[in-house]
This record gives sequence, structure tokens and C-alpha cells, in this order.
Amino acid sequence: SGKLWGGRFVGAVDPIMEKFNASIAYDRHLWEVDVQGSKAYSRGLEKAGLLTKAEMDQILHGLDKVAEEWAQGTFKLNPNDEDIHTANERRLKELIGETAGKLHTGRSRNDQVVTDLRLWMRQNCSALSALLRELIRTMVDRAEAERDILFPGYTHLQRAQPIRWSHWILSHAVALTRDSERLLEVQKRINVLPLGSGAIAGNPLGVDRELLRAELNFGAVTLNSMDATSERDFVAEFLFWASLCMTHLSRMAEDLILYGTKEFNFVQLSDAYSTGSSLMPQKKNPDSLELIRSKAGRVFGREDKEAVFEVSDTMSAVLQVATGVISTLQVRRENMAQALSPDMLATDLAYYLVRKGMPFRQAHEASGKAVFMAETKGVALNQLSLQELQNISPLFSGDVSQVWDYSHSVEQYTALGGTARSSVDWQIAQVRALLRAQQA
Amino acid sequence: SGKLWGGRFVGAVDPIMEKFNASIAYDRHLWEVDVQGSKAYSRGLEKAGLLTKAEMDQILHGLDKVAEEWAQGTFKLNPNDEDIHTANERRLKELIGETAGKLHTGRSRNDQVVTDLRLWMRQNCSALSALLRELIRTMVDRAEAERDILFPGYTHLQRAQPIRWSHWILSHAVALTRDSERLLEVQKRINVLPLGSGAIAGNPLGVDRELLRAELNFGAVTLNSMDATSERDFVAEFLFWASLCMTHLSRMAEDLILYGTKEFNFVQLSDAYSTGSSLMPQKKNPDSLELIRSKAGRVFGREDKEAVFEVSDTMSAVLQVATGVISTLQVRRENMAQALSPDMLATDLAYYLVRKGMPFRQAHEASGKAVFMAETKGVALNQLSLQELQNISPLFSGDVSQVWDYSHSVEQYTALGGTARSSVDWQIAQVRALLRAQQA
Amino acid sequence: SGKLWGGRFVGAVDPIMEKFNASIAYDRHLWEVDVQGSKAYSRGLEKAGLLTKAEMDQILHGLDKVAEEWAQGTFKLNPNDEDIHTANERRLKELIGETAGKLHTGRSRNDQVVTDLRLWMRQNCSALSALLRELIRTMVDRAEAERDILFPGYTHLQRAQPIRWSHWILSHAVALTRDSERLLEVQKRINVLPLGSGAIAGNPLGVDRELLRAELNFGAVTLNSMDATSERDFVAEFLFWASLCMTHLSRMAEDLILYGTKEFNFVQLSDAYSTGSSLMPQKKNPDSLELIRSKAGRVFGREDKEAVFEVSDTMSAVLQVATGVISTLQVRRENMAQALSPDMLATDLAYYLVRKGMPFRQAHEASGKAVFMAETKGVALNQLSLQELQNISPLFSGDVSQVWDYSHSVEQYTALGGTARSSVDWQIAQVRALLRAQQA
Amino acid sequence: SGKLWGGRFVGAVDPIMEKFNASIAYDRHLWEVDVQGSKAYSRGLEKAGLLTKAEMDQILHGLDKVAEEWAQGTFKLNPNDEDIHTANERRLKELIGETAGKLHTGRSRNDQVVTDLRLWMRQNCSALSALLRELIRTMVDRAEAERDILFPGYTHLQRAQPIRWSHWILSHAVALTRDSERLLEVQKRINVLPLGSGAIAGNPLGVDRELLRAELNFGAVTLNSMDATSERDFVAEFLFWASLCMTHLSRMAEDLILYGTKEFNFVQLSDAYSTGSSLMPQKKNPDSLELIRSKAGRVFGREDKEAVFEVSDTMSAVLQVATGVISTLQVRRENMAQALSPDMLATDLAYYLVRKGMPFRQAHEASGKAVFMAETKGVALNQLSLQELQNISPLFSGDVSQVWDYSHSVEQYTALGGTARSSVDWQIAQVRALLRAQQA
Repeated sequence: SGKLWGGRFVGAVDPIMEKFNASIAYDRHLWEVDVQGSKAYSRGLEKAGLLTKAEMDQILHGLDKVAEEWAQGTFKLNPNDEDIHTANERRLKELIGETAGKLHTGRSRNDQVVTDLRLWMRQNCSALSALLRELIRTMVDRAEAERDILFPGYTHLQRAQPIRWSHWILSHAVALTRDSERLLEVQKRINVLPLGSGAIAGNPLGVDRELLRAELNFGAVTLNSMDATSERDFVAEFLFWASLCMTHLSRMAEDLILYGTKEFNFVQLSDAYSTGSSLMPQKKNPDSLELIRSKAGRVFGREDKEAVFEVSDTMSAVLQVATGVISTLQVRRENMAQALSPDMLATDLAYYLVRKGMPFRQAHEASGKAVFMAETKGVALNQLSLQELQNISPLFSGDVSQVWDYSHSVEQYTALGGTARSSVDWQIAQVRALLRAQQA
Repeated sequence: SGKLWGGRFVGAVDPIMEKFNASIAYDRHLWEVDVQGSKAYSRGLEKAGLLTKAEMDQILHGLDKVAEEWAQGTFKLNPNDEDIHTANERRLKELIGETAGKLHTGRSRNDQVVTDLRLWMRQNCSALSALLRELIRTMVDRAEAERDILFPGYTHLQRAQPIRWSHWILSHAVALTRDSERLLEVQKRINVLPLGSGAIAGNPLGVDRELLRAELNFGAVTLNSMDATSERDFVAEFLFWASLCMTHLSRMAEDLILYGTKEFNFVQLSDAYSTGSSLMPQKKNPDSLELIRSKAGRVFGREDKEAVFEVSDTMSAVLQVATGVISTLQVRRENMAQALSPDMLATDLAYYLVRKGMPFRQAHEASGKAVFMAETKGVALNQLSLQELQNISPLFSGDVSQVWDYSHSVEQYTALGGTARSSVDWQIAQVRALLRAQQA
Repeated sequence: SGKLWGGRFVGAVDPIMEKFNASIAYDRHLWEVDVQGSKAYSRGLEKAGLLTKAEMDQILHGLDKVAEEWAQGTFKLNPNDEDIHTANERRLKELIGETAGKLHTGRSRNDQVVTDLRLWMRQNCSALSALLRELIRTMVDRAEAERDILFPGYTHLQRAQPIRWSHWILSHAVALTRDSERLLEVQKRINVLPLGSGAIAGNPLGVDRELLRAELNFGAVTLNSMDATSERDFVAEFLFWASLCMTHLSRMAEDLILYGTKEFNFVQLSDAYSTGSSLMPQKKNPDSLELIRSKAGRVFGREDKEAVFEVSDTMSAVLQVATGVISTLQVRRENMAQALSPDMLATDLAYYLVRKGMPFRQAHEASGKAVFMAETKGVALNQLSLQELQNISPLFSGDVSQVWDYSHSVEQYTALGGTARSSVDWQIAQVRALLRAQQA
Repeated sequence: SGKLWGGRFVGAVDPIMEKFNASIAYDRHLWEVDVQGSKAYSRGLEKAGLLTKAEMDQILHGLDKVAEEWAQGTFKLNPNDEDIHTANERRLKELIGETAGKLHTGRSRNDQVVTDLRLWMRQNCSALSALLRELIRTMVDRAEAERDILFPGYTHLQRAQPIRWSHWILSHAVALTRDSERLLEVQKRINVLPLGSGAIAGNPLGVDRELLRAELNFGAVTLNSMDATSERDFVAEFLFWASLCMTHLSRMAEDLILYGTKEFNFVQLSDAYSTGSSLMPQKKNPDSLELIRSKAGRVFGREDKEAVFEVSDTMSAVLQVATGVISTLQVRRENMAQALSPDMLATDLAYYLVRKGMPFRQAHEASGKAVFMAETKGVALNQLSLQELQNISPLFSGDVSQVWDYSHSVEQYTALGGTARSSVDWQIAQVRALLRAQQA
């Protein structure tokens, strides 16, 4: 049999056990980096005198041929190929003969598996990083273009205060900049070379790990051979990164689902991101947004290596769909304006009294009474007469009418991070600067 | 396009979104039950007067043809087939023409999806149930055959008291009987028919749900149409069942891994359930046991429908591998006997004093002193002289020598559930009775 | 020192370690059941001849005194009392002297801990069971009283079909009946006596476990002593039950939060279940519902014994708050009626064509075209002229006007589980019957 | 009532709901930072002209008094104090009168809560950081002192290759350096000021957030007010950090538990970190290590704010206990030496053949045959005669005897990260350098 560890065993292996143990179904993603790692390792063996130049060339050539077969879809898996590493070495031996048996000298499978995984993740995280920044850029562009649209800010799903639509976009974009920052940190820790750690004790054959590092373009080498082959912190970190990023995308999707209901009616999703019902002909469902939300659940709590491949694919699709959704979304600015109502200015009414000298707690109480009075009478808050307001507090006077202007309300929030136009502009500039810094 | 909800839409769908939304990659497992459910539904439509007898026959015949194609591996998926339900209906239409369009009358996709899923899980849980009982049976048989082997019982990985090897086997078998019981409860809740619930409001066309139930051999019909199409409690229950069952198998595997180390050396795993190392020629790794343990991690915390298929496969393999492991395990009874040491009888020494009238707390203290004295002197606990023991308590006399007999120690534990032979026999009988009851 | 295992040790314990190890902060909940268990065990010791009648009476009397001190709040914990079991036995010894040291004969702490926990959970699950049924009953009563209110059923947060308000209530009540059923099953598995299992090997002193079972009113005894002291399946099952129940309550809360927004405006939460904002005077937040939803997150994924106490408290509060919310909720039936719109009858329009003989797939397509035409023209679906409809299909005729009646639409769904009045009545009767059966 | 949002409400609140909503039970941890934040905010209000200098001084003085009461344990909570923020402001008002009502001007409770939490976590993470480095330092010191002790390295719990004891210590220390690095990154993201974000729209009253930042010594201000008050990424990051760190400590604990069993007998835990059994007098359990392992389970998957307080305490205790365990552990170097066996040099035997020119795969096969031959004959691997070895491969000659030297074997692993003495020294130097860099 072609098993890597065949010498010592005599009995046959239970076929269910064999299938159970095989990882080839998912680790074939690694074919390219496996070849890449093996090529670097054969260079290390040559420098250490364990391969002649001719043997190395033979191996390098053979590995290129293996890669070519994968790339062209002509690589044939054997039933005995339990993982991608076995498969590639088995094929190499078919192509170049016994010399192939020298490639694994001093290398353990654990060594090889973790090197391949780091190479693969380095490449994919870099792609995800770019997709994420593309999404943020789309959001910031949109925020800049639509700064003048006002709509209700919500807390607890109750209308709270008037804000700019851009302020909402930026609240999500800012969250994503943290994900972008974290991904860079994870990438830094992925980019460390384990190869040359052997099974547990290290490499005893004079292989130069610094050469391997340079060949494979890693940022550093691992410090301890036992830790190097067994630790998967970088996998856990990547999955945590994905969870947190999905949480943010999921929250944004949740808001947009709501804003797209008949009842809110603030935005309309493009047909390209909607689907229908097999039963109800009138339905147009926000399936893209619901999928983003539900994929979040599938990212959480995954722990295994298989998860890396699946989560990476999910993140890639989700980031692109989110970018598509945001860039094609149609905003209904009239409905947004109509959703603003005077009771959302109750805080401003309290501030009016504060500016006249009343402590905020009393002003909050007074404004609350006004709200209650208006509700009881069944009128809007700005329809209370001056007389009625003065019954609540003598500090009210004619200038209270200035409170009932949504644009004016919004323009007060000039502190850094607020919803005033100047502050929104500042946010846009800050996020753009972050993107430039993260790209560099 | 062949989409089920095509009428209302005008724009094209983002291809990433389309792929993102498709479930055909995993729900093709459902082909058989999907045909089964559709056949029953067409009978319901006929009885309600929505299909003529001839139309029904045409549909039934067409569906049989679809099933035949799947069974023979000749069914061809289209790129547009987003799920198994669309695929089967698309093919039916190709085979029998426009009449196929009548099959979905009054049925929603949610209706169909959840019916299919329940049918599939009913079938698979029934198979898992049988495999689980087979494992328990193997364990009980082994427990019966090896009742006379004694070895150390451990707590906190420290040697605690001598017990029978069968007592250890039964401790795991008993845990599995609870899993078996729980699976039966889950199966009962899976076996409820949702079909006829439509999208949300129910079925308005006079379809007789009682007929559907009888056709598909369900135990009951769902009570509320909104709940019926959206609830997935039975999925959560199944996954929880799998988690708990895997926890039990994982604990057993952990014990066996330990018992198989060079240091413990109580059992030897069959070659059929071991693998080697690609680097170290002498290694023989308990991979079957490690896989059981690691698969546990992959079962936990899964929440989605895809999980059902994967977890079901995992459980099926795990149960069979565990059965294989247990039935081929070689027990080293001499090593087990040698691992028993007199300090494990310290509790018995305390009981000796209790039987002479000393309160247990004092007896525990006295026996602890004896252990400490023996450790300090560097001798075994049973090598303390009578004089030395009497220095600790005057209640010690010559008959204390009877304490130092492992078989005698074990035979004391006659209370129900204990490790005395009579009690182990009782356990075997109880578990066998449970198996018979659960099978019925 | 008063440590239970003091005999063998010489060094002092690191104080951080000591605090780290102590469980008294949370297991004091167990004081009552600990006394109860010890009383039963002392009866078992007496019957086995390990206590005289006088000693037993002394112990029983002392334990009653301990319980009295706890009940009156006069029990004083020592810094050395690492858990409730140590504390109670330490106090017993102070009260009755050395005889107290006989109580632990043949019993291990594991034995005692798990018995106490099962007693406590039995009692609390029984209370939770009653609270849960009370909530379901409140919901069914409300469903019965408000059967005539129609409102939009939603899927994907898009208006789908007209349904009865009661149908929505019942969809949640039916889900809760499954929780109620599952809790009964968990209770059955909690109600098994482990006492008499010792540390690992069983009980060697002739204690009659059947007597203990009867004393403590358990349904059965555990089968294997090792399994009995170590297994916590019933804890995992309880926590899973709580998770699933909270998922259901959380979904109901989510719907109600939405229905209570200004935009939906279908229900109004009682002030007793709302809170305000410290900043914005007009705010009235659905905090009760949000807490129900957020508590769900805190129930998930807990695994430890401490979780049992906390989760049990949470469930008790949540079930009561949910009952309060449901019974005081104010329904705005006019707003509900106004939210029904003709496009929600598009499925009925398709059925109209089906009844005229068109296959459903074509009818769905035709109805979809009508929806698209109405949207394009900016009119409601029922405002398309007959001429316009006939351009889509010649099967349309004057009787199509009957489609546009919401009550009529709803009344079609007569299949079991549907939203027709007769079917809602059937659901109410079914759930009531279930409640009666579960109570028995 | 003293509720912060009392103006608008008329009904009484359900008492269960009130208790349910209250967070005072756990957020009292925040008393100190709450006062600190309020003092800074009152300075901001004064600069913005919303407080006079005299009012500010009055508030500052009052807040100092509140802090003093907490510090001295004389602060009295009212039943109405639903959280720490309400409690402190209520007390401030009692102490200084109506001016207290000005403190909350323009600040929302969300604003305040998240500022307090960041202040608290900044302080505690800094302490945890120091404890973690102390642990690493202890491990490195020990590794340096015990470099000459050899023992078996294990994979799959099977003896794999001889390694240095220090190599094992360093494998865990290196993992902890990554935790230390990650914690610094989390601290950086915690150290950002949200105060001045109001409820949602920002601060409209001219409060200078840069002044607040400087007052409270934060590294930066948050970019968007909506994001600032709602995001809890830093909590999720902290909990993830704790999970990963606990995973590492848990793995180390697991190894030590095993190494401390009678069967392995490599190390002995200090009595200060052990406990006994209430039943079995001879038992000495590694409770400190088991608690470290079990606490890991309680750290995973926590998500809420309460978790922060509990997890922070747990980490603090665990790090200190781990430091204690490591520094008092007694190593049994003779047992370690005896556990080395010739079959662990099978890889070296293969390398012997590789050095004679055989490809590694063939050498692995040949060495495997030698292992099998020795097992079959029941002798140690180094007891095969030269003749027997030569039957396997003619490349074997007299110099093969040099393979059977454990020290020589270990000294081969000179590649960076290996177990040779020079490489272990390099690791020690690297970790020390990291510690210095992280401390700076």
C-alpha cells in the first residue's frame, strides 16, 4: 500500500476508519501551496547536502509537473490518497521515481500541513483584506454623496433623533475599519514559517530555516518546534476575525432589511439582490441581506481546519454581495424626511431649557411632561401652544419655535463623531485616511 | 429562466449572489424523500379535485422516472437548479410537460423543504438508533465476558479504588443508553407532518392533511401552519443529541487513549484502528480514538441544515468505528492487576475502623495518617507493622491483614450500581432489558 | 483545619488557590436539599446498622436545626467552608458533636453533590413547568378572545398573506408546547437517585439504595456508580431546554418589538413593561422584550453547574415577564386592518386561475405579471381593470372581484393548522388538550 | 421615583421586570471609574460654559465624597438604584442638591456606560498583562535552570522522540507570548474615548472631546457617535483573548496532570496546589490544574458585559495559580530518564540510513521493519544484532551503535526552534527579548 507509515503495520485498516481519517475531500484546496512548500524544502535539502543539485532539479521539475496537472484539472486522485500531501508525493514518485522518497527527509507531515495552511491563509487573507477595503470605500463614497439626506436615528427600534443618512452608513463603515485593522494583525501572525520543525524535536539534518523563510517569503520563523507544529492560534484568530466582521455585516443587513419593509420604506433593494416566492407572486424578498445575516450564524463557533476553507469562501462572497447591495441600493429620501416627527426633538426641547439655565435633569422632566401632554391631547409635540408649554415651565418663550427644525437640530452635533455636516465630513476624511494607511 | 418565482422580476441577479443562495450542493441528499413527498402531495391534490386521476398518474409516473434517474446516477443538474426541489420539478416538466406545473398548487417551498427534511431525518435517525444499540450490545457482551478482570478505577487521573474492568465498560454503556432513549424522543418529534401548511396561512384548496399524513406514514400533523414551516426544533434537538452522544464517546475514547499509552499499558488497539507517523517509524497512533474525540468538537455548536447531513454521516461513522474498536480491543489483564496498589485500599482501611465503631471522619483521618506514615517511610501501605498502625489507633488488630485483598475489596460493593460481581451482573441485565425495550 | 480531606497533607494551601476552588458563593442555593439528602442518608445508615437509632435521631434533630438556621438567616458561614456540604456538616458537628462524623460513612462528596443538584433541579423544573404552562394558557386565552382580528402575516419581513392575529399568537404558543413536553422528559431523567454510589466503586456497607430512593421520592436508581457520580447529562439537557425555550420567547419578543414600532404600530406595550431614556424625554423603550431577547444570548452555551442556578432564575423571570407582557398588550386592530393591502392577495389571484383550470406554475406567472403591471402603473393590484387582467389571461372574468376580500381570503385556509376560524378554533382546542395532558 | 427617565410614564413597573432590568449586582465594580468619568465630564461642561466654575467645583467635591464612601464601604445602595450610574448620581444629588442634575447634560447613559467599561478594562487588562508576563518569566527561568533534563516528547500520547524538559516548558511559554502580544493589541483598541457621543447623534453643546480624552488619558477619540455607544468589539476581543490564553494554560495543565499520574510520575505538584478526597484517604488530587482546565470551559462562549468582570477575575486567579504551580513543581529527573526507550530513536535509525545515501521513504520503511522485528522478538530496538539489521539493509554497519545515545540524539536538533541545547538557549533569549519589548 502507498501509506506513508506502512512499515510497521500488519493488519488491514477498517475501511470506515480509513474514510473517516481522510482529509482529501477538503484539503485539496492546498495543492498549490503544497507544491510551493515542497519546492522550497527541496532547496533546503540541497543546501544541507541531503540532495545533490541534480536530484533537486529532478524534484523541482517533477513538482512543477504535478502543479501543472492540478492547474489543468488532469490530476487523478487515487482512493488511497488520504490527504493532499500524500497525493502529491505519490504522483511525484510516479513521475520521477525513487528520488521522490528523499523529499520528506527530516520533514514531518505536521510540519508540512501547517506550512501549507499558513501559505494558503496568507494568500486568501490578503484577498479578503482587499475586498473588505473595497466595501468600506464604496460605503464612504456613498456617505459622501448623500450627506444631505436626513432620516430617523433609532434606538431600541424606537425613533430617537434625526440624523444624517451618511451618519448611519459611516457608523457601519467605522466598525468595518476595525475589522480591517484586526485582519492585518492576524495576517502578521500567519506570516511566520514553521517548516523545519520536524515532528516535535526540530530538524537534525542541518536544514537552514532562514533559507526556507526567505524562499517562501515569510516574515519570521517560529521559535519552538513543538509549539510550531501543534499551535493553531492563527486559525482561531482568523475565525474570530470572521465572526466579528460577520456580526458587523449582519447588523447592517438587519437594519437594511427593516428599512426595506413596506412599513419603513426607506430603501429599495436592487432586483439583482432580491428573490421571489414559489407560492406568493407579489413577494420580493431581501434574500441577499438575509443570507448575510444567516451566514453569520454559520461562521460563529467553527473551530476546525475545514472551517478555514469554508469561512474564507463565505467571507469572500459576503463582502462582494455587501458591496453590490450598498452600491445599488435606492434611497427614498422623501419617505425618510416624512418619518421625522417632532417628538424626536424632545431632547432639543430639554436642551432649550438647559440653555435658559435649568439643570438637565429638570429639563428632561419638563420635556417629558410636554411629550405626555401632547400624547394625551393627541397632537404633535410642536403643536402645543406657548401657553401650554409655559404651564410646564415659565422658561419657555417665543423662540421655542426654532427648536422645530430638523436640519437645525442635526447641525448642532458638531462634536467629533457627531451627525453635523462638518463632523460627517471629518469622519469621511478619517476613514479614507485609515484605508490609505491600511493599504500601505 | 427556470426560477420558481420568475414572474415579477426584471433585472438579472448578481452571479455571486446566485451561487451564495443555492443549496443544491448539500440538499441533493434529499432527492429520494423529495420524490416521495411529491407523490403523496399529488395524491392529495387528486382527492381535492385539483388533479384528475389521469393527471395524477402522469405525475406519479414522471416522479418515478425522476427517482430512477437519481438512483442510476443519470440525473443531470442544470446550472439553474438552485435546490433539489427546483431540480426535480424542472426535470418532471421536461418528462411530462405542462401538467407538472400543477404539482405545486397550494404548496410552498418552505412546506416542501421541511417535509423532505423530516422524511430524511426520520430514515437516518432510525439507522443511527440501530447502530447505537449495536455498539451498546457489543459493550455489554464484552462486559459480561470479562467480569473477572480487576484494574484501578481513577478519579482526577489518580488511582482511586480497585474496580472491575466490566464496571468501567458499563459506566460508558449506561451513558449511551440515555442517548438511545433521547434519540427515540427526538424521532417522535421528527415524525410529525408539516405538509399542507402553505407559506404561512395554511392550505386553502381542500387538501386533506390526514390523507397526506397516512400516505407518508407520519405519527401526527403539525398544529399551526406558521410554526410548521418555520420551526426547526427537531434539527436543534438532533444536533444536541449528537453533541451529547459524542461527548460520551469522546470520554470513552479519552480513557482508552490513556489506557493504551506505554505508561498505563492496559489495552492494545487493533492495527485496524491505528495509524503510523510519516516521520517516526516506531509510532503507532490511536487515530481512531483521536478522531472520535476530535469529531466531537465538530459536532458541537452546529446550527444549520447543512449540519444535519454532515453530523448524521459523522455519527454513523463514529458509531461503527467505536463498535469496531471495542470489539477488537486487546486487554492486558496482568498489567491491570499489577497497577493495583495497597494505597488504593485506604478507604477500606478507614471502613475497617468504622466497623470497629469509629466515626467515619475520624477513621478517614486515621487512615490518612497511615498513608502519610507509609509514604514517609517509603513502604507500601500494607507493609506498616501492626504496632505502627496501633500507634495511630488502638482499634487496629491482627484481622487488619484481611483488608489487603483486592478481590475482597471489590466484592464489598454490592449496593445496586456497584462494582461487586452481583451488581455488575445486575447492570448487564438492566442494560440488556433497556435495549430490548428501546428496540421495540 | 476543617477541611474534609485534611489527614494526608502537610503544607498550607495557596490562598488564591483556595478561593479559586471554593464553590460556596453559588452552591448555597442547595442548603435545603443538602439537609434533605443527609436526613435520608442517615436513615439508610441506621437501617444498615452503621448508626444506632439514638445516633440517627441525634443527627436528624441536628440537621433540622441547621435547616432552621438557614431558613431564618442565622446560619453563619466560616471562611473555611469551601462548599455547602462542608458548611452543613461543620455546623452539625458544632451542634451535636462527634456523632456528626458518622454521617459521611460510605458517602463521597461527588455522591452528595449530584444528589443535591438533582433534588434542587427537580423542585425548580417543576416550578418552571407550571410557569410555562401559565404563559401558554394566557396566550391561548388571548388567541380565543381575539380571533376576529386580521393582520398581515410576514415572511422575510415582507407582507405575505392576511392571517388572523390569533394565528400568530398560536404559532408561538404551539412552539412553547414543545418546550413544555421536552421539560417533562428532562424532569423524568433528573428524577433518578445517584446516592449510594460512593466515589467510584459503589457502596460497600450494605446501604439499601431502594430505601434511599423511596425516602427522597425518586423515580428510579442510577445503574452504574461511576456513571452516576460523574454524568451531568441532565444539566446539559436542562440548559439545552432553556436555550430552545428562550429562542422561542426571543422570536416572539422580536416580532412584538417590531409590531410596536411607530412604523408598524400594531401593538402597544404596557408602561409596566417599558422604560425610558436618560437623555431623550420622548422615548418609551420595549425593555422587557429586549431583555427577553438578550437573556437568550446569556442562556446559550453555558455549561457549568453555576449556570443551572442562574439560568433557572432567568427562565423564571422571563416566563413571568412574558406572561405579563402578553396579558397587558394593547392591540391596535384598525392599524392592523389598514396594513392589509391587495398585493397580499396575489396568491389568491393565482388560485382563482387554478380554479379555472390553469396549472399553478402558469397561474403564479400570470399573477406575478399582474403585480408587475400594477406596480408599473402605480396602482393597487385590485385597481387593475378586467380588460387589463384579461390581457394577461383570458380566464379572468367578472367574478375576479370576489378575490379582493380579506376575510374571505382568510376563511379559505380550512386545512388543519390553517388560519380559517374553524382551524384556529381547532388549534385552541388542541393546545388546551395538550396543557391538560402535560399537567397530569 | 428616582428613575432617570421618569417624566413620561404613568403606570407602575412590574417588580419582576424591574429586578430583571437592574444591573447593579455586577456593575458596582465600576464605581471608581464612574466617578472618574463624571469628573472629567464636568470639566468638559465647564469649558463649554454649561457649568460655572463654582458649580463644577461643587460637583467635583461631591463626586470625591461619593468615591470616598465607596472606598470606605459606607456607600448605601437604595432598592431603586438600578445601576451604578443612577446610584452615584442619586447620591451626588443628596450631597450637593440640584446642581447634580446638570452633570448629565448632553451625556447619555450609553455614553457613560461604555466610557466606564473602557476605563475599567484598561486598568484590569494592564494588571493581567503584568501577571501574564510574570508567568512567562517564571517559565523561562525554570527552562534555563533545567536545560539538561531529558524526557520523552509525546505525540498522540505515544512516546515520540527524546527532548529536553526545557523544550516542553518553552513550547508553552512561546504560546503565551502570543497571548501577551494579542492583549497589547486589545488594550490599544480599548484605549479609545467614546464620551461625548450622546445617545446617537453626538454632542450638540460644544463639549470638547479632545479635552475629555486628555483628562481621561485615552489614546484617541471614537470616530462615529452611533458606533461609539453601541459597539462592544473590545469586549468580544477581550473574551476571545481570554479564551485563547485559557486554551494554552489548559493544555499545559493537561500535560502536567498526566505527568503527575502514578503511571507517568515525572513531576510532583506542591501540596499548596493539591487537594484530597472526602472519602478516600490516600488521594492527592491536582485540583489546581483541573480548575485551570475547567475554568477554560467557563471562559469560552461568554458574550455579555457581566462576563467581563467574571472572566477578568478568573484570568487573574488562573495566571497567579499557574505561576505558583510552575515555580513549586518538583521534577523527577530519574523517572524522566528511565522513560526514554530505544524505539524513540527509530527516526534516528532512519536518518542513519539516510546519511548512508538511502532515500528517506525507504529508510523509514527499513527502520519500521527493525521496530517490527524487535517487537516480534520481544527485545528492545537497540538489542537487535548487527546481523539482524543487515538483513533489513546492508547499509547498516558497526557505527550504528552510536545511534543509541539519547543526549546525542537530542543534540542533533540544532535548527532554530529545535531541542538541542544551543537552540533551547536561543529560544530562551528570544522569549526574554520579547518580554522586554512587550513590557516597554
